[in-house]
Amino acid sequence: MTLIHPDQPLTDASTPELLSSLLRDWHARAWVSGTGGGICGPTEDGNLFLAPTGVHKELVRPEDFFVVSPLDGHVVRQPATSGLRPSECNTIFGLIVRERGARSVAHSHALAAVLAADLADGADHLEIAGLEMLKGIRGLTNLDVHRVPVVDNTPREPELVAGLARALGDPRNAGAFAVLVRDHGAYIWGDDVWEAKRHVEVYHFLFEATVARHARRSKEGQR
Amino acid sequence: MTLIHPDQPLTDASTPELLSSLLRDWHARAWVSGTGGGICGPTEDGNLFLAPTGVHKELVRPEDFFVVSPLDGHVVRQPATSGLRPSECNTIFGLIVRERGARSVAHSHALAAVLAADLADGADHLEIAGLEMLKGIRGLTNLDVHRVPVVDNTPREPELVAGLARALGDPRNAGAFAVLVRDHGAYIWGDDVWEAKRHVEVYHFLFEATVARHARRSKEGQR
Amino acid sequence: MTLIHPDQPLTDASTPELLSSLLRDWHARAWVSGTGGGICGPTEDGNLFLAPTGVHKELVRPEDFFVVSPLDGHVVRQPATSGLRPSECNTIFGLIVRERGARSVAHSHALAAVLAADLADGADHLEIAGLEMLKGIRGLTNLDVHRVPVVDNTPREPELVAGLARALGDPRNAGAFAVLVRDHGAYIWGDDVWEAKRHVEVYHFLFEATVARHARRSKEGQR
Amino acid sequence: MTLIHPDQPLTDASTPELLSSLLRDWHARAWVSGTGGGICGPTEDGNLFLAPTGVHKELVRPEDFFVVSPLDGHVVRQPATSGLRPSECNTIFGLIVRERGARSVAHSHALAAVLAADLADGADHLEIAGLEMLKGIRGLTNLDVHRVPVVDNTPREPELVAGLARALGDPRNAGAFAVLVRDHGAYIWGDDVWEAKRHVEVYHFLFEATVARHARRSKEGQR
Repeated sequence: MTLIHPDQPLTDASTPELLSSLLRDWHARAWVSGTGGGICGPTEDGNLFLAPTGVHKELVRPEDFFVVSPLDGHVVRQPATSGLRPSECNTIFGLIVRERGARSVAHSHALAAVLAADLADGADHLEIAGLEMLKGIRGLTNLDVHRVPVVDNTPREPELVAGLARALGDPRNAGAFAVLVRDHGAYIWGDDVWEAKRHVEVYHFLFEATVARHARRSKEGQR
Repeated sequence: MTLIHPDQPLTDASTPELLSSLLRDWHARAWVSGTGGGICGPTEDGNLFLAPTGVHKELVRPEDFFVVSPLDGHVVRQPATSGLRPSECNTIFGLIVRERGARSVAHSHALAAVLAADLADGADHLEIAGLEMLKGIRGLTNLDVHRVPVVDNTPREPELVAGLARALGDPRNAGAFAVLVRDHGAYIWGDDVWEAKRHVEVYHFLFEATVARHARRSKEGQR
Repeated sequence: MTLIHPDQPLTDASTPELLSSLLRDWHARAWVSGTGGGICGPTEDGNLFLAPTGVHKELVRPEDFFVVSPLDGHVVRQPATSGLRPSECNTIFGLIVRERGARSVAHSHALAAVLAADLADGADHLEIAGLEMLKGIRGLTNLDVHRVPVVDNTPREPELVAGLARALGDPRNAGAFAVLVRDHGAYIWGDDVWEAKRHVEVYHFLFEATVARHARRSKEGQR
Repeated sequence: MTLIHPDQPLTDASTPELLSSLLRDWHARAWVSGTGGGICGPTEDGNLFLAPTGVHKELVRPEDFFVVSPLDGHVVRQPATSGLRPSECNTIFGLIVRERGARSVAHSHALAAVLAADLADGADHLEIAGLEMLKGIRGLTNLDVHRVPVVDNTPREPELVAGLARALGDPRNAGAFAVLVRDHGAYIWGDDVWEAKRHVEVYHFLFEATVARHARRSKEGQR
């Protein structure tokens, strides 16, 4: 998928290449599609590389990334490619970076995320338990009952900020590196791009496993 | 998937390359297979590049495309490759181009499209709602209830024209960029090849999500 | 997937390359895996290129194919690679070539084929109907009810010959280009490698669609 | 997937390349993800190439493998890449190598393995029957009822050793080349890397097929 290996320190040259290759891999898995989804990762001086909006994410090249400030989202550097606008995720990514000390955030439009949020019905969180893959989330053991906040969708992504801020501020969600957005998808983050990648893969597994197990229990009338 | 990026204007040289790469991607996803499915996109002078019929669509090369008129489907230019015939979608693609001002149309044989049409039972449309990905359809918000027309299949694709013309002429379908054909698949279009690609990915997501949600509700006896 | 296009006549040089590329594609789709599955295609002088047995099919190279006689399966030419034995499908492929005039036969171990055979319960065939993709089978329209014979599995593939011969000899199966083997998979063929490829893709779609529709009807209690 | 063919004897140069290519293929299939999963294979002098822990497994390069002793897991040779630690599977892989004479072991985190272990409920094994693909397991026919041991998960992988040792020591499990770990995945092995690869593909098929058939029977109320 990528020629960049985790033992190579990520630089302002290699980070956009890695972000670009992750978008290609996620598009192949249908976690981002139809120009939906997004990603950001850190510059060496503490800003964020941010993918553009409204473009097919698997075609985003290293030179297409904006540099934005996580403090207020202002554009620090335009991409080499003209005619692009920064991702609508800008505000939400900045919020997560500030509130959680994250340095890389992904936005997934995967069907498994939508179906996992459905399982919460009207509740403000989904509990995930009984899976070894929980250990792939920083700080968790496979014995934990992991609480993933679920927030309501809103007409525009910047308006999601209030709901996300509430979820991130709730101390019961302190262990979560993801927020599910009902009918929409998930925001998933990590301390660096490699941890964000790991969390993205782990949470998608957790969502799929929880949905599949729920379906089996429903079929067998054990609810 | 392709070396063509959305910031490069599509020309008569690059459009067939893009159409060819989309067919390869869609074959990998089983949206076109067994020589089924098809695609067209605009020439610079207002005609259509049209894939040939009866060939494995993922193997269609740029030099295999016909140029046809959207007005009456007549062949303006034969492909460099001999022995090919224009796609049976010719008449339907032309209809959609004329009726909707579309400039690129795809024909999907995806299982998800067949199963989504099944959900309509005998009705003439399927309603899709409660999904952020609706915003991937031009003009829609995630609050819309999106009406996708469903028409009956016919023995030959040119005969579908009457059903499709009726669906396209129904003002209640004015917001749709897709028509589902029962037992068959879907026609999906856009203002240019990039929008058609986006709509293809978005509608397949919407079909899969609607089918998966319906299955869950059936299992839980909430119908 | 392959650099060979349908407009190039297949030769003794290109046929094994095409067969090899099909095995790679089918392994990626999990239609052949775990060394299971197989393929044959015609030599220019009326014999068959046959993949070796007991090897990972996606790694079979052009130089690994045997040439065997469809009349009695005897090896006409050993592959350049030493230490290989011809596929256990040899006898069955020869039977299908002789009985049906096929020139290329594939053997699938796809889960969808196993689940489709399950739907027949104890019966000797499965009926497939109501799908446009039926038109991808030579001679069929989308209005046909297509009868696919289902035979019982046996401990070894050569012993399947009797069951397959009975199925192929039954005039009610005259329109079938596939035989399902219970608990096992399917044999699928065509007049040449391109038709075999088309039939392989179409039958897998038909199996998946029939299984998915049956599951929906079961859930809704409409059986 | 790999340029290494089964007719080439595996050496200390080619074995890590093959192991690396298998991890890439399995990541594409979501059998290893989120840095989970693992693999080992034999050195020419009877030790084991072992993947590192905590890294994205599809990015493990040939130079990233440790050489460890299967007797006690001690590191015989560090990888060329600095900063790596040997996989947590070390103890378990060594146990399987010693108890079963295996020379290559894989650790899968596939959802199908988790769902297959679920089917065992509290029992210590899962029975798999009625599938031709059983013949892909060394020593089995398609008529066998194959017993796959299922052990409980533990907080850390080295602690799994006791449960696995018990399962491997149970004579009723003598025919198994896999152990399912509840909520976790599976360990799957073979006499060499090629057999381990075959067993990995075959067991994943068996798990998927058994889960799919169970779901169908549940839906139809035949339990």
